[in-house]
Amino acid sequence: MISLRNIARRELASSRKLGSAVLFPRTEMLHVFNRNYSAQSKAIVFASHGKPLEVLKIHSFPLPDLTPESILVKFLAAPINPADINQVEGVYPLRPPFQTTEVSSETPVAMGGNEGVVEVLEVGDAVSEFKPGDRAIMRHTLFGTWRTKAVATTQDLTKIPYSKEEISAVQAATASVNPTTAYNMLTEFADMRPGDWFIQTGANSGVGRAAIQLGRRFGFKSINVVRNRDDIDELKKDLESLGATKVVTDEELADKGFRKVIKEWIGSSSIKLGLNCTGGDSTTNIARQLAEGGHLVTYGGMARKPVTLPVSLFIFKDITSHGYWLSRWSDAHPNEKETIVNEIFSLIKAGELKDVPTDEWVWTENMSEEEMLDVFKKGVATYINGAKGRKQIIVMK
Amino acid sequence: MISLRNIARRELASSRKLGSAVLFPRTEMLHVFNRNYSAQSKAIVFASHGKPLEVLKIHSFPLPDLTPESILVKFLAAPINPADINQVEGVYPLRPPFQTTEVSSETPVAMGGNEGVVEVLEVGDAVSEFKPGDRAIMRHTLFGTWRTKAVATTQDLTKIPYSKEEISAVQAATASVNPTTAYNMLTEFADMRPGDWFIQTGANSGVGRAAIQLGRRFGFKSINVVRNRDDIDELKKDLESLGATKVVTDEELADKGFRKVIKEWIGSSSIKLGLNCTGGDSTTNIARQLAEGGHLVTYGGMARKPVTLPVSLFIFKDITSHGYWLSRWSDAHPNEKETIVNEIFSLIKAGELKDVPTDEWVWTENMSEEEMLDVFKKGVATYINGAKGRKQIIVMK
Repeated sequence: MISLRNIARRELASSRKLGSAVLFPRTEMLHVFNRNYSAQSKAIVFASHGKPLEVLKIHSFPLPDLTPESILVKFLAAPINPADINQVEGVYPLRPPFQTTEVSSETPVAMGGNEGVVEVLEVGDAVSEFKPGDRAIMRHTLFGTWRTKAVATTQDLTKIPYSKEEISAVQAATASVNPTTAYNMLTEFADMRPGDWFIQTGANSGVGRAAIQLGRRFGFKSINVVRNRDDIDELKKDLESLGATKVVTDEELADKGFRKVIKEWIGSSSIKLGLNCTGGDSTTNIARQLAEGGHLVTYGGMARKPVTLPVSLFIFKDITSHGYWLSRWSDAHPNEKETIVNEIFSLIKAGELKDVPTDEWVWTENMSEEEMLDVFKKGVATYINGAKGRKQIIVMK
Repeated sequence: MISLRNIARRELASSRKLGSAVLFPRTEMLHVFNRNYSAQSKAIVFASHGKPLEVLKIHSFPLPDLTPESILVKFLAAPINPADINQVEGVYPLRPPFQTTEVSSETPVAMGGNEGVVEVLEVGDAVSEFKPGDRAIMRHTLFGTWRTKAVATTQDLTKIPYSKEEISAVQAATASVNPTTAYNMLTEFADMRPGDWFIQTGANSGVGRAAIQLGRRFGFKSINVVRNRDDIDELKKDLESLGATKVVTDEELADKGFRKVIKEWIGSSSIKLGLNCTGGDSTTNIARQLAEGGHLVTYGGMARKPVTLPVSLFIFKDITSHGYWLSRWSDAHPNEKETIVNEIFSLIKAGELKDVPTDEWVWTENMSEEEMLDVFKKGVATYINGAKGRKQIIVMK
């Protein structure tokens, strides 16, 4: 599909480049030249939903001129999150739009990536909240963060109030989604008091690790369920070092006799909250451990199986089963989100919220588009193959 | 097991009978004689959990003397509810205690039945709330209502403020459990407004029929799911006559194309609430029809299958899955329950809450214990065999 508006815009853009060197005095010419040079973005896009390794392409396009209200940013880092991949596959309810205008593409394409950290390069005259050199994260989803540069507004960005030495780009790039999800789930559903327990599946995930650390800080104890694996002892030690009270495997939890062990751990306290990112038997088994009136919160379905709960858990144990979706919560509570994100930044800075294990995939300025796409796809392939719980992050240098 | 206290008590009771005829003047003697004659109770009991037709027995025992605070009542009617049967089977979390003293039994036995209507025969001197001839229903569960007589207190009873002509014994005997459950579920979980829809499985059950009628009165529209059967057209007409907006079979609901039909019915309204007494596929299918933010309430598990919901319904559609148990709610809200029961009485009187279809099993005063047990077991057998949605009720004449 050919967009007349795009053709017009690209022609305008190229005529402007040529024209600027001729018509403007040197200082302004340099400025304009620089900006136009800067304001080319390279982005990972897709023209149709499908398998990410097949449909993801790289695409270059000129960014619009800076208006008094806009902010030119360059990306420093952006993770590959499960929701991003599901958006590419077309199985996620919120999806970036296929478009031609913004990306100057003849074929409509969508930009991937939702979480990311940027550095401000240039601000419009009316922008007072940001200055060049400031760093920020995305305030909303669907911005398209797998790219080199973008033109944003103050509404798109949440400033990072710490230096690069205090919070690294990689830390900032993963601060808003997983820890915020964990923070909300720990505080919004059950009447959790210090000394209370929660239990979670997928404890080794980014959210799981954040829940362990935030829970510890809130005074909550945790039973953390993980899949059995060769290096299970190492993983248990790892999670315990973050503050996990107990780490158990799916198999241990499934054993009926294990209930007695858990009762001994809990004593007179109770397990008021279950966090679920799997579905299937593990979910049923954590729900069985909940105290009367307990709450189960589902935020993921990594086992690709439904949540299956005996009717007796609902009727006689008064268990309530909820869902949590950060995007919905963020849209409904933008200010609370900013408050929580700032609290998370301060915890990262204080060393109380450890980095998730990451694999970093580096884009450099000298790379060709082919090389950039190749690096990106390696990150995607690692994600798809499980990544052993490691977060895949694109780092732009 | 022999209880010394019981032996002593029975000896005391028989010596008192003999003694009363000798020691008291005629008027008081008659009174005492009458009371002692009245104060024999015949009750359906069980000494161990198991199949109801095997473990249920009939047992006669003397009731304690009336104290100033107590009330002698005779039962007029008592239903056989699913929870009663589950208590006998030992699969219900609240169960009547096995005891010897109150029932003067050498072997500990438990009395069955939870719902029932009584007529007051005699009241202690300190009782002002009730007088002979008053009718009442049980305020709490576990009273043991499958019996002829009992000694109660004002705390055990909720007075029926209408005459026998206004509300029959059979109507009163089924007023507290099913309609109260339906009332609560319709009003406590979702923000239902007039014009909103609810959808329910087991629409032909006692609760289902009450929900249809109460829902209509509240201005709610309903999609009522029933199992397919030979006389399905008759059943649809029957439920529609109660106020069901739509009646569909499990099979119709399971058809993916049916979603479109439902959308046409709903128009711009939404299905905010699902009531579930089955489990299994029907439950999954009603949950799929709920609007974003909808609530599913499970109060029964007639299909003996769990509640199975895709994780996406929790995460992206923000469905919350609750349980409802009348016993818990009643214990927590005794005054609210009385208010609702009185509203239900007024609706029955006004003809706005139609009788559930019943089979009546009659106990008469002249029957032998064997005959009474035989009649009772016929009711139980009919219940176990499905009863085609008819409520089994013991009527004491």
